[in-house]
Amino acid sequence: MEYRKVTAIIRCGKLEKVESRLQQIGVQGISVTRVKGYGEYTDFYARDWMTSYARIEIFTAAEKVDDIVAAIMDAAHVGLSGDGIVAVLPVERLYRIRTRSDATTEQI
Amino acid sequence: MEYRKVTAIIRCGKLEKVESRLQQIGVQGISVTRVKGYGEYTDFYARDWMTSYARIEIFTAAEKVDDIVAAIMDAAHVGLSGDGIVAVLPVERLYRIRTRSDATTEQI
Amino acid sequence: MEYRKVTAIIRCGKLEKVESRLQQIGVQGISVTRVKGYGEYTDFYARDWMTSYARIEIFTAAEKVDDIVAAIMDAAHVGLSGDGIVAVLPVERLYRIRTRSDATTEQI
Repeated sequence: MEYRKVTAIIRCGKLEKVESRLQQIGVQGISVTRVKGYGEYTDFYARDWMTSYARIEIFTAAEKVDDIVAAIMDAAHVGLSGDGIVAVLPVERLYRIRTRSDATTEQI
Repeated sequence: MEYRKVTAIIRCGKLEKVESRLQQIGVQGISVTRVKGYGEYTDFYARDWMTSYARIEIFTAAEKVDDIVAAIMDAAHVGLSGDGIVAVLPVERLYRIRTRSDATTEQI
Repeated sequence: MEYRKVTAIIRCGKLEKVESRLQQIGVQGISVTRVKGYGEYTDFYARDWMTSYARIEIFTAAEKVDDIVAAIMDAAHVGLSGDGIVAVLPVERLYRIRTRSDATTEQI
């Protein structure tokens, strides 16, 4: 089975909506960190150009990536700069600690 | 030389044991963040479904990955849902700031 | 268009200089987290072997990676152990939430 990592950097104010949407589509594990960041068109000369964002990280089966990306883009969208990004990264191996198993080599 | 990134999401209560095991096998650099997360079988309707986890990140030579994964799986294992995961991601290049060198192109 | 993720683990004391250098070369989005970490040559038997580091994450067009790595290495360099690392990871897809678009398939 193939896996991917989805990382989203979104507005903190949209975090609850995104989490609830991800639960609705059956995402089974997410982790969330607060990050400081700046994005497009920021006024670099302003004192407070660093804003707080939420960083969501999801390890998922490759075939669920499109649904997850669509759910995040829909729930996090405002239409203004600073809306953030969603990135998909390759994952070579994924292990579940509970079962001590390699999910990447499991038969479906 | 080839490099990989190992990311582990584990119970906070297992962090000290995992760190100590990683030191024993000679891992030379780890970074740790607290993340909020939920995993398999969480009761999504519970108010406090988001638990605190420790996120460990290790950049390492590819040939050490198996030992690192085994050490984390062993030290972090409880056998219950919420034990977390270990993921291995490809790394294209790795630079050491101290020596201003590209570790990926170094001769062994 | 191809994208990469650049992750740097640097001394906290160098963060401001690195951020300012990244702005100068036109980097349009970075996110920063504080992490606890240890690196080469740490005295593992010391009580306070975990130091605070800054973790910088940048999603960028592939052709800007060399400039970004050089800027970080230059601004974060002290020449002592604990200077940290810069890693470049492959990115499969990158989406902008504001425009609901896939930056990886955009024409230049």
